[in-house]
Amino acid sequence: MRNFVTGVAGCIGSDLAEALIARGNFVAGIDNLSSGKIEHIARLLGHKNFRFIEGDLEDPAGVETAMQGAEFVWHLAANPDVKFTAGDPTDKDLHQNLICTYNVLEAMRRLDVKRLAFSSTSAVYGVSKIQPIPEDAPFPQPISLYGATKLACEAMISAFQSLFGFQCWIFRFANIVGPKVRKRGRTVIGDFIVRLNEDPGKLLILGDGQQAKSYLLSEECIEAMLFAVDRAQAPLNVYNLGCHDSLQVTVIADLVVEAMGLSGTKYEFTGGEGGWPGDVPRFLLDVSAINSLGWKARNNARQAVESAIQSTLALGNKTPAVRT
Amino acid sequence: MRNFVTGVAGCIGSDLAEALIARGNFVAGIDNLSSGKIEHIARLLGHKNFRFIEGDLEDPAGVETAMQGAEFVWHLAANPDVKFTAGDPTDKDLHQNLICTYNVLEAMRRLDVKRLAFSSTSAVYGVSKIQPIPEDAPFPQPISLYGATKLACEAMISAFQSLFGFQCWIFRFANIVGPKVRKRGRTVIGDFIVRLNEDPGKLLILGDGQQAKSYLLSEECIEAMLFAVDRAQAPLNVYNLGCHDSLQVTVIADLVVEAMGLSGTKYEFTGGEGGWPGDVPRFLLDVSAINSLGWKARNNARQAVESAIQSTLALGNKTPAVRT
Repeated sequence: MRNFVTGVAGCIGSDLAEALIARGNFVAGIDNLSSGKIEHIARLLGHKNFRFIEGDLEDPAGVETAMQGAEFVWHLAANPDVKFTAGDPTDKDLHQNLICTYNVLEAMRRLDVKRLAFSSTSAVYGVSKIQPIPEDAPFPQPISLYGATKLACEAMISAFQSLFGFQCWIFRFANIVGPKVRKRGRTVIGDFIVRLNEDPGKLLILGDGQQAKSYLLSEECIEAMLFAVDRAQAPLNVYNLGCHDSLQVTVIADLVVEAMGLSGTKYEFTGGEGGWPGDVPRFLLDVSAINSLGWKARNNARQAVESAIQSTLALGNKTPAVRT
Repeated sequence: MRNFVTGVAGCIGSDLAEALIARGNFVAGIDNLSSGKIEHIARLLGHKNFRFIEGDLEDPAGVETAMQGAEFVWHLAANPDVKFTAGDPTDKDLHQNLICTYNVLEAMRRLDVKRLAFSSTSAVYGVSKIQPIPEDAPFPQPISLYGATKLACEAMISAFQSLFGFQCWIFRFANIVGPKVRKRGRTVIGDFIVRLNEDPGKLLILGDGQQAKSYLLSEECIEAMLFAVDRAQAPLNVYNLGCHDSLQVTVIADLVVEAMGLSGTKYEFTGGEGGWPGDVPRFLLDVSAINSLGWKARNNARQAVESAIQSTLALGNKTPAVRT
């Protein structure tokens, strides 16, 4: 099958492309390399079943050209910086998440490509009164621009699915962790490693450290998506992808300190419930739907984080040097 | 108080402006007159407490200039054509609903205007399993581009509210009917009157005629919004606005035929459950939240429709001549 993967040079997109090719599929992948890295797909370049297009999803004509011949679209490209910092433009997520998703949907409609898998996020739920949060949670009220625009993407996908006879899979990701490191070290693990490399004596932790979130290894996330696309055959399929539990940020700090062989590191906290404006400080995902379909995460939150710490440290001096 | 009303030349916007001015407020109103009509605000032009700006919300700088000095924003401007017809551009609602709403929110943030009322729609719910539909209905899956982009607007409002300390009121409207007639006669009442004026012997009804929806008179809708803004003081307030029941399309046809003094009109149906792609054929709104706040529609669906038929017919030859 001919797959089109957006964000193919990203941490998840590149691993997905490898998994699809390993299954005998053809993959055309697009990335604008704004946060994706060419080294993530270095092993694939030149493979007979892989084609890389450097391009931007904000260009509708470019998307349509790149998507020619596709039978299945995996739309993973997005603004990877969930954090909003005062002074940031407020339309970054609107463009990189929603407008790009609309362009993907419209290209599919024009080219008569009918099947789409989409990486959504637990951030669409906002602060849910119900924990763990099921897919049919009460009407969501996102608190971040990232979550709001991902919800907007889901809404557009739902309308296109219904109006134009698409079949869609929406995956609401927990925090995805893994061996590939983001350019700016914005994930909590990368952030802690960068800070501790700079100064092993103290560690600045965003928020009050009591934040507790669900984590999932990148490889398990990809496995779950492929599993669900093979088996869930409703017109519109929505699944939370995560482990069944959560892990506190201070515990992650402890695990990083221990894995780096440090001791006596003093924690400092920026304070406040959330780590940044729009952060949902505590959540658990109800993963019974994907479990009932037959897939279950092998690693709980702690195990997933431990594994990601080990693989990130194993990268050695490839550890991200830039922190924002 | 200085109010800024978008879509001020629309059916609802113009009546809202009059109501606000009658309460002693100042109103600056913007409209691009794409569907709004200058005659809707003819009585207000020249009033010392009214200022009209002809402008387009797709122009961010223009929105910001027009909003200067506002203390409260009523954002009613939207694509009024809920119907999607094959061949229509698929990004009309994206631009006229979502991008415009983002521009309004961003102008508010820049100008430090903190309070916003927004006209959303029952279409955000999609096809709800729960009837009547409460505001906290399960995670919505809209089936129209109109509903999807209105949900996207709600999501952006929710994020801006939370990130920037706004106070917001989101009103999910039933079908709003009233004496003012849309340019193209796209509401069911105007459509029936136009068709029967052309040929009293037969009436083409979209769908199977079994569609049954909630209706609310425009004047009651405005009353309810003002009531809720005065009394509901949560950071984010969401209310369904409608009557407690619904009315079948064939009954509306009967009422129009009777009101026009016709008899023997033969009904023809285009067939299918919905009237058009993306139409939600049957819904009831749970209005217990606005009722509990102390406001209740005086007219049920049938009474609201009867009243709108009478006032539309009273317009005589001002009845819309164009139908699409």
